[in-house]
Amino acid sequence: MSYRALDDMSVLTYVQKVEALAPFCGADADLSAKEIGDGNLNQVFIITNRISGKSVVLKQALPYLRVAGDSWPLTRERMRFEVGALLFYGDVVADLVPRVLHHDEAMSLIVIEFLGDLEVMRKLVIKGQRFEHFAEQIGRFMASTHFYTTDAYLSSSEKKARLKTFSNPQLCKLQEDFVFTNPFMDSPENSCNPLLASDVAALRQDVDLKLAIAKAKAEYMTHAQALLHGDLHTGSIMVNREELKVIDPEFAFFGPQGYDVGTLFANLVLGALSHVHHTTDPERRASYQHYLLDLIPSIWRVYTHTFDRLWQEHNEGDLTPTAFWDFGGGKEAFAVYRRAYLNRVLQSAARLGGCELLRRLMGIVSVADLTQIDDKGVRVVAEQQAIQVARIWLTETITDGASLAGAAKYTVGLTKKGTA
Amino acid sequence: MSYRALDDMSVLTYVQKVEALAPFCGADADLSAKEIGDGNLNQVFIITNRISGKSVVLKQALPYLRVAGDSWPLTRERMRFEVGALLFYGDVVADLVPRVLHHDEAMSLIVIEFLGDLEVMRKLVIKGQRFEHFAEQIGRFMASTHFYTTDAYLSSSEKKARLKTFSNPQLCKLQEDFVFTNPFMDSPENSCNPLLASDVAALRQDVDLKLAIAKAKAEYMTHAQALLHGDLHTGSIMVNREELKVIDPEFAFFGPQGYDVGTLFANLVLGALSHVHHTTDPERRASYQHYLLDLIPSIWRVYTHTFDRLWQEHNEGDLTPTAFWDFGGGKEAFAVYRRAYLNRVLQSAARLGGCELLRRLMGIVSVADLTQIDDKGVRVVAEQQAIQVARIWLTETITDGASLAGAAKYTVGLTKKGTA
Repeated sequence: MSYRALDDMSVLTYVQKVEALAPFCGADADLSAKEIGDGNLNQVFIITNRISGKSVVLKQALPYLRVAGDSWPLTRERMRFEVGALLFYGDVVADLVPRVLHHDEAMSLIVIEFLGDLEVMRKLVIKGQRFEHFAEQIGRFMASTHFYTTDAYLSSSEKKARLKTFSNPQLCKLQEDFVFTNPFMDSPENSCNPLLASDVAALRQDVDLKLAIAKAKAEYMTHAQALLHGDLHTGSIMVNREELKVIDPEFAFFGPQGYDVGTLFANLVLGALSHVHHTTDPERRASYQHYLLDLIPSIWRVYTHTFDRLWQEHNEGDLTPTAFWDFGGGKEAFAVYRRAYLNRVLQSAARLGGCELLRRLMGIVSVADLTQIDDKGVRVVAEQQAIQVARIWLTETITDGASLAGAAKYTVGLTKKGTA
Repeated sequence: MSYRALDDMSVLTYVQKVEALAPFCGADADLSAKEIGDGNLNQVFIITNRISGKSVVLKQALPYLRVAGDSWPLTRERMRFEVGALLFYGDVVADLVPRVLHHDEAMSLIVIEFLGDLEVMRKLVIKGQRFEHFAEQIGRFMASTHFYTTDAYLSSSEKKARLKTFSNPQLCKLQEDFVFTNPFMDSPENSCNPLLASDVAALRQDVDLKLAIAKAKAEYMTHAQALLHGDLHTGSIMVNREELKVIDPEFAFFGPQGYDVGTLFANLVLGALSHVHHTTDPERRASYQHYLLDLIPSIWRVYTHTFDRLWQEHNEGDLTPTAFWDFGGGKEAFAVYRRAYLNRVLQSAARLGGCELLRRLMGIVSVADLTQIDDKGVRVVAEQQAIQVARIWLTETITDGASLAGAAKYTVGLTKKGTA
């Protein structure tokens, strides 16, 4: 069957013909569909069985960037990466991703379970909600999905085969341009808070910062370390008090592990800083900012422990075969190597996360945490703080997760310099 | 036509049917063939037209590792990388590679011009010969072939497409194992000078060195910076006093630029150290060792100047678009970035070259420079010096080409510490 964009009606006809969906939409099915896509690249239907009350989600890639009509060509190939990544995630962290019920390459669509009990994390961060298991869940998600796609686990030929499968030039190019390049030069799609304009202008002329950004970009483009989610901000995470599900991995590609880690950390910082508006009571605000920022070292602890444990359990990958370390003092040496490896990931996360922080202030797309602040004079406070944090992340040597959080806490005035 | 291994007779029938070779073996042709392959992976025929006196070379990949009979499977796919690389080299550095006259993917073979006037560089280094244009030629070869395949020149999508084309898992795996892993652990194929055995044993237990080697290996496996030759030692270079031709790029893949640079530098060092035997007169020996080692900073100078000039001329690649640097002081900032980039290549060359130095002393295959020294007591002098140089390259901070050469000169006693 060849591609056609579905609508509210044809989507029902489509799902009723899919055998794998029969348990959901059997003979008695009275189905309804609702398009809820708020993204720019896809349409998303919630399809509900009015008899059983159950729903599924059908996501279909459109052959253009939605926000720009059909003027911005973008192939539907990206759905292949989303499907491939979700299926892989289902193998290694099944509890942390939606179940894939059906996928169709020709139609560029996927059907996944409906996550009706969960909400997009960004909205809940704005509301000041806490998430009991978040550090464990997202730390484990990143560490597991990364580890099992590195040369530390895979044979080098299997790694190279997957690298080809996940070659994702179009969506990588979007990030290369809109995360690492265009925000830092004059480009028509950029926008910023008018009150931030002079800071932005100064930043675009800041040599040290631009050198660090250019280095981060080269890392994003050439360091094929592990399969990344590729767009792991708080809008790509669904949560409730118990559960967490990572969605939308269409940017998946083999890149530096620090990119997922840094993108997530940067969005936690933006969330925390935005509470200068979202929480008016100073004490409650400080408490929530502490909470959000303390997630960073907690996540990093889970990430390193999980990654390190997996590496010890699977020590035959081509990168680090046991026999190489099997000599007097070998076990300790291997542990030192793993620590050094993860420390490089953290430094990379700081650089790449620093770019994410900045581009959300001066690029094509900001984050709701900031854009929902109507008072530009209040918003600029958070934005100027974000620039300060980014500057530290991009240009100072970061040695642990607490330093990343500490940079933000100090900037907001939650702590004195040098303490977390 | 399906694959069949050619022999002295069938190779003649084959070439006479190839239209592109008609000027060489036309109707009057009285051809003879001679198999001269001394490699492990291929057979190489020199085919001579006895009327015109002209020759061509036909190289065909065998479906196994020749030295091990058919017990070591290795697909013929590698010929595709050799052909692809040579055709690309012909576009950017035509004077530095043999002309490709014909290639045949099904038969896994290539026909190139006969380089009768040139000799394998390693043999001439052993003889103590000098090469007037060598630094300019090989520096330009590496800088040009690297630059035109980086993200600094290519669009990021074109780069990613080529990266897939040159995914070369089998030959990469050979280097991963035999350059970066097996020499540094107990592995049955390793061998070394018996007089070096205790040094080798100590080295296999040296934690700092093995940490640096493991880091270098990760770099080889994950840093997809540019299209490398992948095996650029002095046996892959043909020279005479005027000309230079690089051959045998079957290991071509996208990796860290420093790997080609470091492999070449390491083999110059091994050449220089081996003259403890090859040149008996102390004065002449010192002079030749100075000459060979001084090639290192000379080559690095050509490499950086060429790479940097090309980068300035072509400043629209996705890695570094002009507009990104186009601000007050931008030109200078871009120059700083280029210097930092090339400095990272040098540090990488030191690490990766250090591994090459070591593996030639304690792995599966040494170099003729050393193996032609019959007196093991003399050979071990050069080998112990190579270990000292490797230790410096792998564990100290290298800031310029002269420091790389200086480490060797100091070790040999040509200079005092700290001078070049």
